Amino acid sequence: MLKDHIFEDDGLSKEERKEKISELQDYLSGNLQRLTTEKLPVLVLVEGYSAAGKGTLINKLISEIDPRYCTVFNYEALPIEERRYPYLHPFFCALPEEGKIQFMDLGWMEDAVRNRLSGDWDARRYRQNVLSARRFERQLKNNGYLVIKLFMAIDRETQKERLDNLRKKESTAWRVDAHDLRQNVKFDEVTKAYDDFMQETGESFPWHILDGSNSSKASYNAFRIITDAIRDTFASGKYNGAPYEEEFPLVEMPKLKDVDLSLSLTQEEYKKELKRLQDSIEQLQYKIKRKNIPVIIAYEGWDAAGKGGNIKRLAYPLDPRGMKVHPIGSPEPHEKARHFLYRFYTRLPETGCFAIFDRTWYGRVMVERLEGFCTENDWKRAYNEINEFEEDMVNWGALVLKFWIDIDSDTQLQRFQDRQNTPEKQWKITDEDWRNRDKWDQYEVAVDEMLEKTSTKFAPWHIIESVDKKYARIKVLRIVEEALTKALNK
Amino acid sequence: MLKDHIFEDDGLSKEERKEKISELQDYLSGNLQRLTTEKLPVLVLVEGYSAAGKGTLINKLISEIDPRYCTVFNYEALPIEERRYPYLHPFFCALPEEGKIQFMDLGWMEDAVRNRLSGDWDARRYRQNVLSARRFERQLKNNGYLVIKLFMAIDRETQKERLDNLRKKESTAWRVDAHDLRQNVKFDEVTKAYDDFMQETGESFPWHILDGSNSSKASYNAFRIITDAIRDTFASGKYNGAPYEEEFPLVEMPKLKDVDLSLSLTQEEYKKELKRLQDSIEQLQYKIKRKNIPVIIAYEGWDAAGKGGNIKRLAYPLDPRGMKVHPIGSPEPHEKARHFLYRFYTRLPETGCFAIFDRTWYGRVMVERLEGFCTENDWKRAYNEINEFEEDMVNWGALVLKFWIDIDSDTQLQRFQDRQNTPEKQWKITDEDWRNRDKWDQYEVAVDEMLEKTSTKFAPWHIIESVDKKYARIKVLRIVEEALTKALNK
Repeated sequence: MLKDHIFEDDGLSKEERKEKISELQDYLSGNLQRLTTEKLPVLVLVEGYSAAGKGTLINKLISEIDPRYCTVFNYEALPIEERRYPYLHPFFCALPEEGKIQFMDLGWMEDAVRNRLSGDWDARRYRQNVLSARRFERQLKNNGYLVIKLFMAIDRETQKERLDNLRKKESTAWRVDAHDLRQNVKFDEVTKAYDDFMQETGESFPWHILDGSNSSKASYNAFRIITDAIRDTFASGKYNGAPYEEEFPLVEMPKLKDVDLSLSLTQEEYKKELKRLQDSIEQLQYKIKRKNIPVIIAYEGWDAAGKGGNIKRLAYPLDPRGMKVHPIGSPEPHEKARHFLYRFYTRLPETGCFAIFDRTWYGRVMVERLEGFCTENDWKRAYNEINEFEEDMVNWGALVLKFWIDIDSDTQLQRFQDRQNTPEKQWKITDEDWRNRDKWDQYEVAVDEMLEKTSTKFAPWHIIESVDKKYARIKVLRIVEEALTKALNK
Repeated sequence: MLKDHIFEDDGLSKEERKEKISELQDYLSGNLQRLTTEKLPVLVLVEGYSAAGKGTLINKLISEIDPRYCTVFNYEALPIEERRYPYLHPFFCALPEEGKIQFMDLGWMEDAVRNRLSGDWDARRYRQNVLSARRFERQLKNNGYLVIKLFMAIDRETQKERLDNLRKKESTAWRVDAHDLRQNVKFDEVTKAYDDFMQETGESFPWHILDGSNSSKASYNAFRIITDAIRDTFASGKYNGAPYEEEFPLVEMPKLKDVDLSLSLTQEEYKKELKRLQDSIEQLQYKIKRKNIPVIIAYEGWDAAGKGGNIKRLAYPLDPRGMKVHPIGSPEPHEKARHFLYRFYTRLPETGCFAIFDRTWYGRVMVERLEGFCTENDWKRAYNEINEFEEDMVNWGALVLKFWIDIDSDTQLQRFQDRQNTPEKQWKITDEDWRNRDKWDQYEVAVDEMLEKTSTKFAPWHIIESVDKKYARIKVLRIVEEALTKALNK
C-alpha cells in the first residue's frame, strides 16, 4: 500500500549509485538494436504524485538512450479533442512499435484517478474502465509488449514544499497548476485512489513504487527495474500469450449452411423502402450528432457478396462531415509493428460521428488465421480480445453494428465470371480472389467460429442474405434505422 | 469578379439537368478505378459564402461516388490545436493519396480570408500566406495533383433569408453560428476579400464560380467541371511539371572537396564545452517554449559520419516533452502516394517545440535523384519546392537549422571496416551502405548542388566537419546555442 509504504535503505552512497547507473546505461544503450531484432516493443509508464520528480526521472532515463529509439508521451499535453474518444484511446494510439521504447509521463492510471475524483466518471463507469485497463494490460502482455510500470511517491509535506519552491521563482512558477495544488490539499483522498487503482491492476505487470524524495535512489531503482525487465525478456523470449476464456453474454447464431439465401425483394418494394429508409436515416443522423453517440459499423463478407454497393446505400444519406468509410486492406508497416487493434483505435469515430469499416478487426480470425499471418495463440486469443474491445466501445456509449454479407459459393462463382467477362468490372477481380475462393471451406469454418464466439448481446452479428443484393441493402438499412432509434431512446 | 458576376442561363430545365447529371455520375463512378491505375490524386476544394449550399453540393457530388474512394475534409471541425501549426498544415495533411478524391468543405481560401478580416494576420502576414497558397497550388499541379476549385456564390439578401429560415426551426438553428451572421453584416467586405484571394490564386488551377441560388444549376455545373477536368487529365496524362526558377537569397557555400576536415578538439576542451553548451541549451529551451518558437533541425550527412552520436548530444539537454527526434527512412505506402513533403508536414513541431530530423526532405535531391525514385523534373524542381517549404516555416516563425555532417571517403571506409570487425557494431553496417559508398562521387555532385541551391539566407546549411566527432558535436551545439539566443532576442 502506498499509504504506509516503507522505502528500504539500499546502503549505497550517491557516488556508488552513479557508478551502477552508468553500467546499466551501458547495457541499455548497447542493447537497443537487440530490441529491433527481437521485435520487442517496450512501454515505460511513469505515474506518480505531482512534483514527485517524474519529468526529471524520464529525462535521466532517456538521456543515454539513442533518441531515435524512444519517444515520450505527455498526458498533460493531450488535446481537448481527446475527450471525444474512449478512455484507452490516447494510450492505444501511443503504443510503441516493435523495437522502440515509449515513455509515458502519466497515463491510464492518472486518467482514471482524475476522472474518478472529479466525479466526471460515476462509480459504474470507473469500475468499467478499471476493467478495461486490466484487460488492456493483459492484451499488451499477451501480444508481446513489455510494460514497465513505475510510480513516483512522495509524502504530503515534501510535495507542499516542492510546489511552494516552484511557485516562488518566476522561471518555474508556470509549472504548478491548479490540479497540483488541489492534489496537495486532497492528498489522502488521492493516495487512496492511487492505491485502489494499483491494487486493481497488478495482474499482468507489477507496479514499482519509487522513492521520489530521493532522486538518486529513484533513478537507480528505475534503471535497475527497466534493465532487469529487458534482460529477462531477452532471456525468456518475446511472450505470446495462450488463449483464455472470459465469459461474455452470447447470442446464438445459425451456421452459415443453414442461412436461407433465397430471400428477395421486388424492384418496386426495394425502391420504396430504400427511399423511406434513407430519408429516415438522414434525419436520425442529426439526432445522433446532437446526442453525441458514436456509431461503429463493421462490414465483413465473402468476396463479391456486395459489400461495396451495400455500404454505398448506407453512406448515401449520411452527411459526410460526420461519417467516414474506412477501407481496410493489409496493414502498413507501422501498423503491423503494433497491437492488431491499433489501426482500428486510430480510426475510431469521434462522439456523434459514424465510422463504417469495409473489412475490420475480424481479419485476425479470418485471413490472418488462414494465411498464417499470426500465431495460433494470437487468433485463438483474438475472440476474447475483440469482445473486450467491442465491450469497451459499447461502455463508452458507442453503437456497434456488425454485418456478415452472405452468399453461397455458386453465386460467388457466377459473379466472379461475370466480372471477368465485363471489361469495366475486370479490375474488381484478382488472382487473390480466386485463391481465396479455393479456401472457401476453410473460411466457412473460420466464419462459423467467429460468429459463434463474437456475437455478444452488446454487439451481435447480423447475417445479411445477399444473393439478392436489394434484399441485403434493405435489411442493413432497417437494422441501422432500428438501432439508431433505439440508441436515441435509451 | 465576384461582386458583379453574372450567371448565364444554361437554357436547361431542372429535369434536363437531372438527366445530364445522371450521365456524368455514371462516367465518374465508372472511372474511379482508372484514378488508381493512373495514380491520379484529386482534390475538390469547395469554398463559398455561408449558407450558399456547400454541404448540400458536396453531398450530391459524393452520393454516387463509392465512399471508399473519397473523403471529406471539414474546415469548421479542425481542432483548436491546429493553431499551433503553420497556415498550410491542415491542408497539406489532408492531401489525398493517388487514386483518391478528397473533398474540402472550405479550405485555404476561407482560412486566409477569415484571418485577414479578423485581423489575426497583419497585412504582411496575409501577403506571405497568399504567396504560400499560390506556391502550394503550383506544387500540387507540378506533382501531378488535379485540383478543382469551386466557389459557391449567393447575394446578401439570399444569404440573409436562408440564415433566417435556418434559425427559425429548432432542428436547424444550430447550423447558424456567429461567424455566419457576421458575414452577412459585413457582406461587401467579405466579398472583396474573396475576390482578392481568387484573383491572386488563379494561376495553377482556375476558380469556378457557381450559382448558389440555384442548386440544380450549381450541381450540374459542378459535375460538369469535375468530369471534364478528370476526363482531360486522363486524355493528357498525369502532369509532371518542369523545373522553374524562383529567386531566393542564397548564401555562398564551399564545395565539399574544399572543406577542412582536419579540425579537431582535445578531450579536455570537448568535455568542458559540452557541459557548458548543454546547460545553456537546456535553459534556452524553456524560453523558446514560453516564446512559442517552433524549432526544426535537419541532419543530413554521409553514412557513418556520426549523425547518431551528434543528435544524441543535442537531444540530451532537451526536455523530451517538447522535443521529438524523427528518424526518416523510406516512406510508407500512404506517404509515397502523396506529395513528397507530406511526411514532413505531418511531423512538424508545434509552436514552442523542437523537431529533429535524422535525414530529411533533402532525400528528394539525393537518394531519390540517384536511385531514380522520382523523375528528373521532380528532383530538379525540388530545389525550389524545398526553398519554398523552408521559407514558409521561417515565415511561420520557425527556426530552421540544417547540418551537413561531413567526412571524407577514407574516413568512411575506416569506420565501415571498424563496424564490420566489431561484433556489437555489425548491425550498423548493411550491404546498402556499401552500395551507397560505391556511388560516393555521384553523391558528392548531388550534395554540392544541393548546398549551392538550397542554402538560403533564412535557412542556410552548416557544414559540420566530423572526422573528429568531438569537434562536430561542439560545432553543432554552438550553432544551436547561438541561433536560439538570436531567435529569442528578435
